[in-house]
Amino acid sequence: MGGLEWLGGGITSVPGILASGIHCGIKSSGKKDLALIYSSTPARAAAVFTSNQVKGAPVQVSMEHIKEGTIQAIVASSGCSNVCTGERGLSDAREMTTIVGELLHVPARHVLVASTGVIGRPLPMDKIRAGLPKLVKSLSPQGGRNAAEGILTTDRGPKEAALRLEVAGRPVTIGGIAKGVGMIEPHLATMFCFLTTDAAVSREALDWALHRSVERSFNRITVDGDQSTSDTVAILANGLAENQVLEKGSRSLRQFTQGLEAIAERLAKLLVKDGEGATKLVTIHVKGAKNHREARHAARSVATSLLVKTAINGQDPNWGRIMMALGKSPAVVQAGRVAIWFDDEPVVAGGQQAPGARLDRVREIMGRPEFTLSIDLGLGTGQAEVWTCDLSEEYVRINATYTT
Amino acid sequence: MGGLEWLGGGITSVPGILASGIHCGIKSSGKKDLALIYSSTPARAAAVFTSNQVKGAPVQVSMEHIKEGTIQAIVASSGCSNVCTGERGLSDAREMTTIVGELLHVPARHVLVASTGVIGRPLPMDKIRAGLPKLVKSLSPQGGRNAAEGILTTDRGPKEAALRLEVAGRPVTIGGIAKGVGMIEPHLATMFCFLTTDAAVSREALDWALHRSVERSFNRITVDGDQSTSDTVAILANGLAENQVLEKGSRSLRQFTQGLEAIAERLAKLLVKDGEGATKLVTIHVKGAKNHREARHAARSVATSLLVKTAINGQDPNWGRIMMALGKSPAVVQAGRVAIWFDDEPVVAGGQQAPGARLDRVREIMGRPEFTLSIDLGLGTGQAEVWTCDLSEEYVRINATYTT
Repeated sequence: MGGLEWLGGGITSVPGILASGIHCGIKSSGKKDLALIYSSTPARAAAVFTSNQVKGAPVQVSMEHIKEGTIQAIVASSGCSNVCTGERGLSDAREMTTIVGELLHVPARHVLVASTGVIGRPLPMDKIRAGLPKLVKSLSPQGGRNAAEGILTTDRGPKEAALRLEVAGRPVTIGGIAKGVGMIEPHLATMFCFLTTDAAVSREALDWALHRSVERSFNRITVDGDQSTSDTVAILANGLAENQVLEKGSRSLRQFTQGLEAIAERLAKLLVKDGEGATKLVTIHVKGAKNHREARHAARSVATSLLVKTAINGQDPNWGRIMMALGKSPAVVQAGRVAIWFDDEPVVAGGQQAPGARLDRVREIMGRPEFTLSIDLGLGTGQAEVWTCDLSEEYVRINATYTT
Repeated sequence: MGGLEWLGGGITSVPGILASGIHCGIKSSGKKDLALIYSSTPARAAAVFTSNQVKGAPVQVSMEHIKEGTIQAIVASSGCSNVCTGERGLSDAREMTTIVGELLHVPARHVLVASTGVIGRPLPMDKIRAGLPKLVKSLSPQGGRNAAEGILTTDRGPKEAALRLEVAGRPVTIGGIAKGVGMIEPHLATMFCFLTTDAAVSREALDWALHRSVERSFNRITVDGDQSTSDTVAILANGLAENQVLEKGSRSLRQFTQGLEAIAERLAKLLVKDGEGATKLVTIHVKGAKNHREARHAARSVATSLLVKTAINGQDPNWGRIMMALGKSPAVVQAGRVAIWFDDEPVVAGGQQAPGARLDRVREIMGRPEFTLSIDLGLGTGQAEVWTCDLSEEYVRINATYTT
């Protein structure tokens, strides 16, 4: 990816994209709780939603609106997820798209809506109705950071990324913002990621590129194994780069998708680093599995084990818990063939502690903010990578008291 | 079960059963770390072991020894699990059965062996060799409690139960001891349970009774979703009650099995109550699922969700997390049909907060040391029950520093 250049900023680094974020009163803390992303021209859009069977009202409304493939605005709120709120929830979510549509002079069906926060409470619509005109007035080509702040819940801070790359000889920009940070698990758990680009992309191609990028980024992360009812990843492509429209199967689309994957991977890792109570980003790399699917099962079993995650938190080179997590996974594992490294330090060989294993050095590696746990199952050629974080007392503290 | 009478004590409440527990030096704390159970006559035996693919050396040896169906002694150690220790581990485990066999004048193959504790370290065999004669000398008909103490790791205290019941007109005694308490998850995670009875039971019948009891007790509990490499549940039936031998399919065997289930359920619940850092025992009862299997999936998804478990810890009536956990389970769930109660207090009806739900009262119920979370999926007649505990900061504290 020679032509890939990281930029400052996020969604509004993309030409033709305006954004805003304000406090309207959903959060009692006074922090921003409404966000808006607006494309000055109707954009080609694609989206991926939570696979949880209990879907929030905004997810249901956005699933209807995305069908046509054209979206011009995304309105998001934080502090209340509008999930398990019945007919009223659906009508509230619809009303948000209607109000924003009227204010922006676009059809309501060209507006996506997303809400994150506590489940089971109705949105304070009076506050939102009063806030939306202010939100629209605040739209600005420098508003990306405000929007990034407007979607946060227990996140420690906003998450943005932007880059420029050449696609078929023309510069194209891609930007994104994301939020985590509990209920994080592959297959889209409480997280939003909103992406923008000025590339011209066909509908089918945009869908393909988004799914592929999500598969290689957000579907590789896990914080707590829970899966939210509100997850939404959406991309708006407004075509202002005036490149030849990217079509499925083309070399140019693959170039564009490399950039999209890079943005999604960066944002996904930011989510894990900011996992509730997390202090470390750990890459679990499994190779030597019978196939890719089994490698993924094994990596996920290690990445989600509470005993592995607490050992990482305590910088405890307790490799036996990794063996335990491998053994309980649905992947075929033969203990005597397993080898494990922490970064470049061998710890396990042939299913036992490696001769001369330097546990003090492993402890030192585990103290790093980022490290890789490499596992060779010694059975085949399947590989997979999952990104996880440690489990700290802070996670429990945050989640034992979230609604109160 | 009119004829069921709870007794004090545990395994040695059963005639013909002796036991002992001593400190030999595996644990640096000075606490007991060796336990022995001995039947004065060769006993019919059955056992269930971990389904983790990474099995400890003692599990592998015991799996060989149980094949014949006759066992006269069980030797167990705590503090070091002898897992992932290769050929040396197997030979150490075998040696323990040989030494105990010689001291007790029984064939080594009639001795089961079990070890629990840290994975990946060799047993300190010099200490064990020196300790075993002392362990055998300490055998006593009052030694049940010592044995119960000798198998503990991070448990807060010993777990024992014993009862007497009539089987085909004759009094029969059943006793048991168990230990937890991390890596606890249905399908046998770090736990031992050793059961004894003076009933005369055929081999096939004993196997059936044990599997059924484990299925309805230990396979219903979860502490942290992890699954140990050492789990062992074994029963010795020495026949001293001189009842007519219980055969599979008989009414008498069903009577006996009711007693065995009662003991196993009591010990399983003691394990959950003593889950690492746990402060509450919560029964998750799901009904209205499409079938039993789906009910179990749904109950387990709720019982293992970190967000549900932290909410229970914080006495936070955050029912949305229960909806989330139901929605992500493999069971079919229609949000609009779900109803939820905390004990007798309705909280969710039709997938939304029940009209007039008294969250203050729910908070009060969640403060109890035991309560039931009832969930009706409204789809069918499938039911299942799982016992879980809360997740506290203490759990993380314990597990972040276990080997160090």
